Amino acid sequence: MYAEIITIGDEILIGQIVDTNSAFIGKALNSIGVSVYQITSVQDDKLHILKALALAEKSADIIIVTGGLGPTKDDITKHTIAEYFNDVLILNNAVLAHVEYLFKTYITTAPISDLNRKQALVPSKAKILMNDFGTAPGMWIEKEKKTFISLPGVPFEMKSLIENKVLPELIKKYKRPFILHRTLLTYGLGESALAERIEEWEDALPDYIKLAYLPSLGRVRIRLSAKGFDEELIRNEVEKQITTLLPQIKDVFVGYEEKESSLEKIIATRLTNKKLTLAIAESCTGGKLTERFTANSGASNYLKGSAITYATQSKIDVLGVSSDEIKAHGVVSHQVAESMAVKVREVFHSDIGVATTGHAGPDKGEGEGEVGTVFIAIATKETVFSNRFTMGNHRTKVINKTVNKALELLEKEVF
Amino acid sequence: MYAEIITIGDEILIGQIVDTNSAFIGKALNSIGVSVYQITSVQDDKLHILKALALAEKSADIIIVTGGLGPTKDDITKHTIAEYFNDVLILNNAVLAHVEYLFKTYITTAPISDLNRKQALVPSKAKILMNDFGTAPGMWIEKEKKTFISLPGVPFEMKSLIENKVLPELIKKYKRPFILHRTLLTYGLGESALAERIEEWEDALPDYIKLAYLPSLGRVRIRLSAKGFDEELIRNEVEKQITTLLPQIKDVFVGYEEKESSLEKIIATRLTNKKLTLAIAESCTGGKLTERFTANSGASNYLKGSAITYATQSKIDVLGVSSDEIKAHGVVSHQVAESMAVKVREVFHSDIGVATTGHAGPDKGEGEGEVGTVFIAIATKETVFSNRFTMGNHRTKVINKTVNKALELLEKEVF
Repeated sequence: MYAEIITIGDEILIGQIVDTNSAFIGKALNSIGVSVYQITSVQDDKLHILKALALAEKSADIIIVTGGLGPTKDDITKHTIAEYFNDVLILNNAVLAHVEYLFKTYITTAPISDLNRKQALVPSKAKILMNDFGTAPGMWIEKEKKTFISLPGVPFEMKSLIENKVLPELIKKYKRPFILHRTLLTYGLGESALAERIEEWEDALPDYIKLAYLPSLGRVRIRLSAKGFDEELIRNEVEKQITTLLPQIKDVFVGYEEKESSLEKIIATRLTNKKLTLAIAESCTGGKLTERFTANSGASNYLKGSAITYATQSKIDVLGVSSDEIKAHGVVSHQVAESMAVKVREVFHSDIGVATTGHAGPDKGEGEGEVGTVFIAIATKETVFSNRFTMGNHRTKVINKTVNKALELLEKEVF
Repeated sequence: MYAEIITIGDEILIGQIVDTNSAFIGKALNSIGVSVYQITSVQDDKLHILKALALAEKSADIIIVTGGLGPTKDDITKHTIAEYFNDVLILNNAVLAHVEYLFKTYITTAPISDLNRKQALVPSKAKILMNDFGTAPGMWIEKEKKTFISLPGVPFEMKSLIENKVLPELIKKYKRPFILHRTLLTYGLGESALAERIEEWEDALPDYIKLAYLPSLGRVRIRLSAKGFDEELIRNEVEKQITTLLPQIKDVFVGYEEKESSLEKIIATRLTNKKLTLAIAESCTGGKLTERFTANSGASNYLKGSAITYATQSKIDVLGVSSDEIKAHGVVSHQVAESMAVKVREVFHSDIGVATTGHAGPDKGEGEGEVGTVFIAIATKETVFSNRFTMGNHRTKVINKTVNKALELLEKEVF
């Protein structure tokens, strides 16, 4: 059981957009036991699309195509798919009614144009997957045992179609194995050091469990992947292996990615359960730390709010950090980081305050210190502490490393 | 002149990470006149990698492979490339010295392990591209007129190698055409309405200029792409076409993507030039609006800071919004949005204050109103106004649409 994902659009190949659709579709397919053999991104070019479809048909059972379904002339997917299946486009009245409804409800009461009406033309062999959020329908075409699915490239339209239409239909049509991924999050030890420490355990893994190391700034994820038709056997064996592994990495292990998704979700769950509240004072991270929390629903259960005191004067005006302290130690210092954490906790009336201050570069901000130098402080009712870090000289890297390090320190604080 | 990008790693196919490397490489190659024919993401599987290399060799002149160069057992790219070229791995002393230097400087003074030492094994036919930021070197192998380049998958290591080693070498080796992309940002008009309005202009475009519409939440980008060896002709013709187009879209046009990259950069440039400062009060957008500004360097020139007043009480405690007003109108209201904008401007001593308040969903926050209802307010010294929007019922969509809409309103304000 293999799928191939084909994403269509010059904007992907020239690097104007990042293809996030493939990752979403890959994850969704894995969740129902379908492995993705390959992801192929091709140009808005008929011959290239036809070639990609033919190659995918050879190696995959399910071919999912996204993009190129808009109403403008650069959108050629529908015509190309019709050609691939020696098919013609016909008007689908249900789609036409839906397009008319969307325009009347959300856009204008004027009659829709020919360009919009063309969205209701579909290959005659296609089963329609109605798109609740847009004018381009999903299409499902079967060829012997293979299934071709064409979806719009707009991410939230595609996501809704995958979740509500594609997955239920695939579950009905195919007998699928069970796929399990379990990812352990570790912080503070490098990839090679970690691999050496657990080498004996890794070498003793059964053949059907695949291990992968995923290093990124300040953390290494360890993923165990297994696939088969005996779900219980797979679950038990993977669980057994993790139980053997955990004591060997207990100083760096912080949680599971699939269970709680991320460090910020682990922290969110703990804060919510303990009925603790958080306030954040950000300087160099510029809102990114807060955004990691607020991107998930439920943040209002524990997050009082944040002060992004980007300018030095704002640290004084909004948080009440003393200007003498800033003069004495510089704005990037243990003292100012700790004051920010203490003050943000007071101003927002939270249980915990966390603060970042540093130089993200490329140019130095106000105050002293080298680019890449960052202080992170955490304040509670009883105590305050801060740590100094050197995060390198690349702006994006400094910001992201600082966010990850702040999350790591917070996780330890709310353990 | 075509390139193919092959990204290697099960983590891409199972959707654990989004492949951002391809977009970066695509953009970089375009900048020196190299078009990307296809992006292919394959599994950590020897046969699959060999097959992808063989297919890519047929359609592209330059094949860039990323990923699978780490020190652990799941990293098989180096061995597979050696096999593809009937080559063997040999120890490269310069790489070994570099690995030793990196460990001594950044990790530990203890001698490096065998696992790290193996990073210095490279195919004998490969020219080494030294990786300043990591232990895995880039590799450059020529086969007749074709070039194969293998790079580490860690984004900042890959980026540095592309910019400092790969592009200069490709420029030396190949005669390349000139590629020009120009993207016009428009806000406030749908894709089909825009396409209909400029249809006559589009139909009259010369053959070698390709047009694409890129719709996303609240905005449509129009891209003109052209390629050829006569740079001056291409530049002049594209410029001429844009000059013809602009009067037809002047009510929705806000700027060029390539020139100023994004609406937040346009606003940043204008604020900086006018010596105006900004403060932001965010509720439902949770830091994302601020982060759009602080992701770019130079934000300290105009951004005083932000208050992310996520909890209702924080709007009172930190900004000084009156609790009576919140009781009377609800926290998601014209009145509270305007108060937030006025107060954040005062608290941060900025020239302009912008505020968002709304329900991002899926569950309703504190206060009244439907999920998806958002108010955005802008305050200056002279005036304050707010607008009400209905952003749909999808959390990520509500947040992103609100951020884009706030940027759109700000852009008009600082025109």
